[in-house]
Amino acid sequence: MAVSYYLCPQSLRVSSGSRLFISNSGYSWDNHKKRIHHLVCASARQPEKDLCLESKLLHLLLLWVRRVEVDPHLSPPKVQTLLDNVKWDDKGLAVAIAQNVDTGAILMQGFANRDAVVTAISSRKATFYSRSRSMLWTKGETSNNFINIHDIFFDCDRDSIIYLGKPDGPTCHTGSETCYYTSVFDLKEHQQVEGNELALTTLYSLESTILQRKSEVEAEQSGKPSWTKRLLLDNHLLCSKIREEADELCRTLEENEDKSRTASEMADVLYHAMVLLALKDVKVEDVMQVLRQRFSKSGIEEKKSRVSQG
Amino acid sequence: MAVSYYLCPQSLRVSSGSRLFISNSGYSWDNHKKRIHHLVCASARQPEKDLCLESKLLHLLLLWVRRVEVDPHLSPPKVQTLLDNVKWDDKGLAVAIAQNVDTGAILMQGFANRDAVVTAISSRKATFYSRSRSMLWTKGETSNNFINIHDIFFDCDRDSIIYLGKPDGPTCHTGSETCYYTSVFDLKEHQQVEGNELALTTLYSLESTILQRKSEVEAEQSGKPSWTKRLLLDNHLLCSKIREEADELCRTLEENEDKSRTASEMADVLYHAMVLLALKDVKVEDVMQVLRQRFSKSGIEEKKSRVSQG
Repeated sequence: MAVSYYLCPQSLRVSSGSRLFISNSGYSWDNHKKRIHHLVCASARQPEKDLCLESKLLHLLLLWVRRVEVDPHLSPPKVQTLLDNVKWDDKGLAVAIAQNVDTGAILMQGFANRDAVVTAISSRKATFYSRSRSMLWTKGETSNNFINIHDIFFDCDRDSIIYLGKPDGPTCHTGSETCYYTSVFDLKEHQQVEGNELALTTLYSLESTILQRKSEVEAEQSGKPSWTKRLLLDNHLLCSKIREEADELCRTLEENEDKSRTASEMADVLYHAMVLLALKDVKVEDVMQVLRQRFSKSGIEEKKSRVSQG
Repeated sequence: MAVSYYLCPQSLRVSSGSRLFISNSGYSWDNHKKRIHHLVCASARQPEKDLCLESKLLHLLLLWVRRVEVDPHLSPPKVQTLLDNVKWDDKGLAVAIAQNVDTGAILMQGFANRDAVVTAISSRKATFYSRSRSMLWTKGETSNNFINIHDIFFDCDRDSIIYLGKPDGPTCHTGSETCYYTSVFDLKEHQQVEGNELALTTLYSLESTILQRKSEVEAEQSGKPSWTKRLLLDNHLLCSKIREEADELCRTLEENEDKSRTASEMADVLYHAMVLLALKDVKVEDVMQVLRQRFSKSGIEEKKSRVSQG
């Protein structure tokens, strides 16, 4: 039975403790639909008791069906050419970086061979090549925390790949949102315990600070007084500030103020609005998701019709 | 003369066409200050005519002085331990990803050895190991587009590094903001020419769409009508929408509306405010920079005193 390794969901686990087999019934080639139909043998190597068979099986079968549908010959010629021109290293690999499409957070980094990229294009799940296990693996196969791909990018040198996607849950096997939580400068300057600080970009670093102030307020810790804490404790003050800052932002346009004033007022609007988000337990990532869904492709036109109807 | 290769700015170029030498005057070890003082020999390998010697030389000498100041023995023990525990590959390398601290954009990816990381910690410039040239190189040595490091993160497996920093200019040698501008799905779905689409996360993808509408309006292209174009052409409408959306966001707190309503209203505030930013030629990245500078460490307290004085 010659079946490509990537058709085998080797991480399949069953609750019974016994191995599960799906027998191979051969394959057919449908010239009209240009698809290969397979059934493959799958063997659970690490049976575990506490997993729900039905749920896991469904996920894995769906994944497997997606993988089976991979047909390199179906990819448009330009994608084929792109893949032909990738500078795979001496092991046939390129660096593959998974990035959260909404927050920009770098979730994890692995390696991909050509099959992994072809599988990722087809299944829309971030797929890597495991150098230690010498096989393809799709992030989420065991944890269900898949990274759902929105687009794939190659760099100018054609030896580095971004999987731009939306994670179903924490990416790191430790339960952390991303795998990057050990800050060198944190260690260098504060000698703190490793693993305290996620690699956060500006907006999410500010969100993290606001949430920290919120937890201090909720725990009634004394700590240092801060403007953020005052806002968190006074809805009237917060809302009057948001309205005031929005007005000041508008006046930079209406009164033709300079660019730096606009950037400064927009920063004020963002900060105060983010304090409100924290109070409402809404994450900036949730807002980004709304923006993405609303404004993808035809979204702006939809917005137009929604407003013009209103 | 035994000088570590990373002390040699080999990319030094001179305008005269002749080679430039800075002779080695030996070194001294100052036990009190714990610094090594060097002067090294530098030879311009690819003389070019059009570069300003003074400017380039100053940059390179500053970089060289920073490198010379690298003393691994001075790093705190926990950073030393971290570096000792990195899983360098069989060539002594780990993957190093440079990310824009404000936008989250992945700028480029290279490889780093221990010396590169130590140099990056010390110089605060993203530094890599060039596999093709078998030497350290600091991004920006030739282009002046350095990536100024704010923090460095290791992943859970200790074999992948993020240089989180602020680029001085476009990172890619092609002049593109980042090296990732070839979208597989763009090729797959539209068969467009490669290189049209940067890997943008949600907020910057929306900004790009708004800027595209702005250029259509400015070029008086007919194109499809859109809500964004209407806003771009009518300051009164835009400002009334920004004030209205800010008010609606506040009301989700004041009237205890559900979380999804808050996320939706915040998305409205952001989108309309971003149209104003586009009109004022202010980039979202500029706003993030203001936020970062204002709210880093003591920033929120500064804000408090500023406001309480006001």
